Amino acid sequence: MDTYLWYGLGELMERRALILLSGGLDSSCLAYEMVSRGWSLKALSAFYGQRHGRELQAAESIARQIGIPWAQVDLSSVGHLLENNALTGQATLPQDRYTNETLAVTVVPMRNALFLTAACAIALSEGYDAVALGVHGGDHPVYPDCRPAFIDAYQVMVDSFTEGHRLKILAPWLHQSKADIVAVGAQLGVPFELTWSCYAGGDLHCGRCSTCRERKEAFRLAGVPDPTRYAA
Amino acid sequence: MDTYLWYGLGELMERRALILLSGGLDSSCLAYEMVSRGWSLKALSAFYGQRHGRELQAAESIARQIGIPWAQVDLSSVGHLLENNALTGQATLPQDRYTNETLAVTVVPMRNALFLTAACAIALSEGYDAVALGVHGGDHPVYPDCRPAFIDAYQVMVDSFTEGHRLKILAPWLHQSKADIVAVGAQLGVPFELTWSCYAGGDLHCGRCSTCRERKEAFRLAGVPDPTRYAA
Repeated sequence: MDTYLWYGLGELMERRALILLSGGLDSSCLAYEMVSRGWSLKALSAFYGQRHGRELQAAESIARQIGIPWAQVDLSSVGHLLENNALTGQATLPQDRYTNETLAVTVVPMRNALFLTAACAIALSEGYDAVALGVHGGDHPVYPDCRPAFIDAYQVMVDSFTEGHRLKILAPWLHQSKADIVAVGAQLGVPFELTWSCYAGGDLHCGRCSTCRERKEAFRLAGVPDPTRYAA
Repeated sequence: MDTYLWYGLGELMERRALILLSGGLDSSCLAYEMVSRGWSLKALSAFYGQRHGRELQAAESIARQIGIPWAQVDLSSVGHLLENNALTGQATLPQDRYTNETLAVTVVPMRNALFLTAACAIALSEGYDAVALGVHGGDHPVYPDCRPAFIDAYQVMVDSFTEGHRLKILAPWLHQSKADIVAVGAQLGVPFELTWSCYAGGDLHCGRCSTCRERKEAFRLAGVPDPTRYAA
């Protein structure tokens, strides 16, 4: 898997990246992976009014565990203006029955664009080489801003700002599965119990929402023991 | 000038747009212009930690004057993480001597991308046809995210999110000068005295910063009386 991370970046880069760390499995494993490959990281998390603000504590714990600086941005005033969304509070989170249609209420329009743009602004201001995010293949069907075409278009937009290739959007898991990510995380000793996936916003993982199910499934497929305490 | 505004949008659009209203001359005149052409507008302003937060009052006044709804987003937690910037407080605003180099401290990295992304998220959530912004030809030399290449790349990124052409980025003044804009505004009866340009953050326009100078110059070139009270 050595090649996918570098994307032809070359050895001359300083390898300083700002990583979007949600506190979930994917971004947490990515942070460990990048540090293991010699990247110097700073973690950035975003509060956007999500009911599962609990994930931010997870992000901070993971950053502390790795020993990298962590910052948080508050984009909740944008989140609060979004109508009919299950993550920012106004719509009901789908339970048990998941199709691309029922999951549509969990699509926060342009969420990754918003996170990436805040991260790129800060990265350009602080002279980072890259902004990294943990989107993966399993995100593609429902979330348009997790797809390769979106990441490519976003990179072109950033390049048009910098008039060149000054800041790389690194999404090394764009074509991996969540089970692949758990397998890598297990090898790297990621403290999975510190990560948070659940959208429901309780004190324990609910075990029933779409992300809880994905989380369980990823551990199962990877053959890695799942240390998560689920309410159901 | 009838064609530039429509960009081949066709007559079937509902013409509902979210407009980025800073409270300055350009976006204020654009709001008047679009309303005069039958657009139904909602105005969105952003606080990003700018020392000239005074402009937000101007934006609200303009929106009230036109009679359109107005909302504000708070992106200041991003602004506060930007180092070495004159608009968000940590660097000195250049006075009197303006070159592309001295003005570099007034470039907030990806500022328009940040505003546009917040606006697009809200516009997609609320079903608007377009997001409008008042960037113009005079902005190009210093501000990369005011250039045609950037706006084009941003549109492609949005299209990749919507998988089609669902939301148009409207920047009808991309190739106009600020004097052109003042001339249009004068015809439309824009209450120029309610608009705010100054970056310095005082109670009156300072008359010396780069935007104050641009403002004065635009009125002069357009042959329109400037109602602004300048401190200097």
